[in-house]
Amino acid sequence: MNNFNHHLYILTEHDDIYRQAIENTHLDGLTITDNRAEATILLAAPPMAASCINDFPNVEWVQSVYAGVDALTLHPKRTDYLLTNIKGIFGQLISEYVIGYIISHYRHFPLYRQQQSAEQWTPHLYESLSGKVMAILGTGSIGSHLSHAASGLGIDVIGINSSGIPPKAGKFSRTYHVNELSAALSQANIIVNTLPDTEQTRGLINEEVLSHCFRTLIFNVGRGKTVVESDLLNAIDKGYVEHAFLDVFEQEPLPELHPYWKNHAITVTPHIAALSFPSQVLEQFIHNYDLWCTGFRLDNEVSFDKGY
Amino acid sequence: MNNFNHHLYILTEHDDIYRQAIENTHLDGLTITDNRAEATILLAAPPMAASCINDFPNVEWVQSVYAGVDALTLHPKRTDYLLTNIKGIFGQLISEYVIGYIISHYRHFPLYRQQQSAEQWTPHLYESLSGKVMAILGTGSIGSHLSHAASGLGIDVIGINSSGIPPKAGKFSRTYHVNELSAALSQANIIVNTLPDTEQTRGLINEEVLSHCFRTLIFNVGRGKTVVESDLLNAIDKGYVEHAFLDVFEQEPLPELHPYWKNHAITVTPHIAALSFPSQVLEQFIHNYDLWCTGFRLDNEVSFDKGY
Repeated sequence: MNNFNHHLYILTEHDDIYRQAIENTHLDGLTITDNRAEATILLAAPPMAASCINDFPNVEWVQSVYAGVDALTLHPKRTDYLLTNIKGIFGQLISEYVIGYIISHYRHFPLYRQQQSAEQWTPHLYESLSGKVMAILGTGSIGSHLSHAASGLGIDVIGINSSGIPPKAGKFSRTYHVNELSAALSQANIIVNTLPDTEQTRGLINEEVLSHCFRTLIFNVGRGKTVVESDLLNAIDKGYVEHAFLDVFEQEPLPELHPYWKNHAITVTPHIAALSFPSQVLEQFIHNYDLWCTGFRLDNEVSFDKGY
Repeated sequence: MNNFNHHLYILTEHDDIYRQAIENTHLDGLTITDNRAEATILLAAPPMAASCINDFPNVEWVQSVYAGVDALTLHPKRTDYLLTNIKGIFGQLISEYVIGYIISHYRHFPLYRQQQSAEQWTPHLYESLSGKVMAILGTGSIGSHLSHAASGLGIDVIGINSSGIPPKAGKFSRTYHVNELSAALSQANIIVNTLPDTEQTRGLINEEVLSHCFRTLIFNVGRGKTVVESDLLNAIDKGYVEHAFLDVFEQEPLPELHPYWKNHAITVTPHIAALSFPSQVLEQFIHNYDLWCTGFRLDNEVSFDKGY
């Protein structure tokens, strides 16, 4: 690499925002290109880059605009470039999503919205969050952040992980080994999956596990493949699950005619529980670009072997 | 009073729940009556009791099912009975309401609900709560509880009260005297009114005060008369206020054809931000009934002079 000949290709959901901000920043030696063959740096959403990475023969560095880079590291077509990802405020954002939807559900926000449209004044009894039990699958940084936020609202939080050992950063009243999953979930009013997609987590939330629930709220903010979709639909039919809040799916975007769309006990959101904000991505990209030009090691480098 | 001749009349929004629970409890010497003239004890919602309190010539004790008893203490028709109210978990419930609607707003929950109906997968950028500034009018038990809950989600909370002195129980980064209201509100992304209805608070949130806002969210969970309704509508038109979440109104129920109903920048809820739950009311009623029968002083007695 040298200081005066970098060509950046932008491949994200918000190309205009990034293009304008980077042009306004006037980074030394950086040109934005629309010619994939010419690009040496790629600022990209991993799922968009994965399908066409071979169109970029000269790429040396890919800055992901997501935290999740599995599209580029699981079964990678190439590993001959440097890959960096984003460390965002995902614990905060996931906590907002989960707590917002819990309150919206128990406090009847959608019902009051309908009533307002009909100019109808009808109070309904409700349940407080105080004293509810939340089980979080995964006690890493996201699960731990959520454990604090939920405890602050009077929720009793239990953790489930692969060791059964309480994490230092979390606020869990009890921590269970994943082998005790059914016992843990049977205590919970609210279940939140934050686990990554691995051999061990795939299909973990299945018919057997769900049969231990009763009128439970389930959140999936981890990966779609952790939940067996047909088993979840059955558990809703049987009343084991009262409502499912799903931000991730086996296939994304969620396909047309998928039964989730029209199920009134399911809330579908388009993988937005935790986004990297363009301002954060830009800040890191500019910082890493400086390091790149001066030959230093970049921040948040990803190992293709580990996948993180 | 004696132990064996108490007649209870129930006058609430949930008479069936209370009747059945009290019958199941078999309280010594207590008969539920439908004859108002015979009643010696009244379990009542204050607005319902206020209009007909003279129908109860023999009432000795009124247990309110609300915390707010102003319907019975402001301009009272009678003060010749003992009045007790409910101390509930109002700080918790108000905090859930406010935080739930803040998240729902910034995280586009209503929009995603519409999109799901249309089977539409479209992510939208959003703002985190982290770093937002909330100004709470009133730093008593409810405002203080909310200050903790909001701080726990990364919100910077400032308080406004009649002394300018920070309350011990709260978590306010700054506290302003109400005379500095405009200066305080101009810093806020979110304003929450928790004040009671008094001479000093009536009309406090008016055109002048609202002109210091910019794209602000406003919550009224205190009393309706604190907000000048026409001024709020103007402030929404001018963009000073982005959205108003209103649980209390000058007139309740909110009248038909009131402009709030159809305004897309206003969320109307039917005075439910904090309810006393029947289970809490029953627990206190049974406890107070025991005290009453044995001649002890009741819990949560209200002074007609003070109004609380």
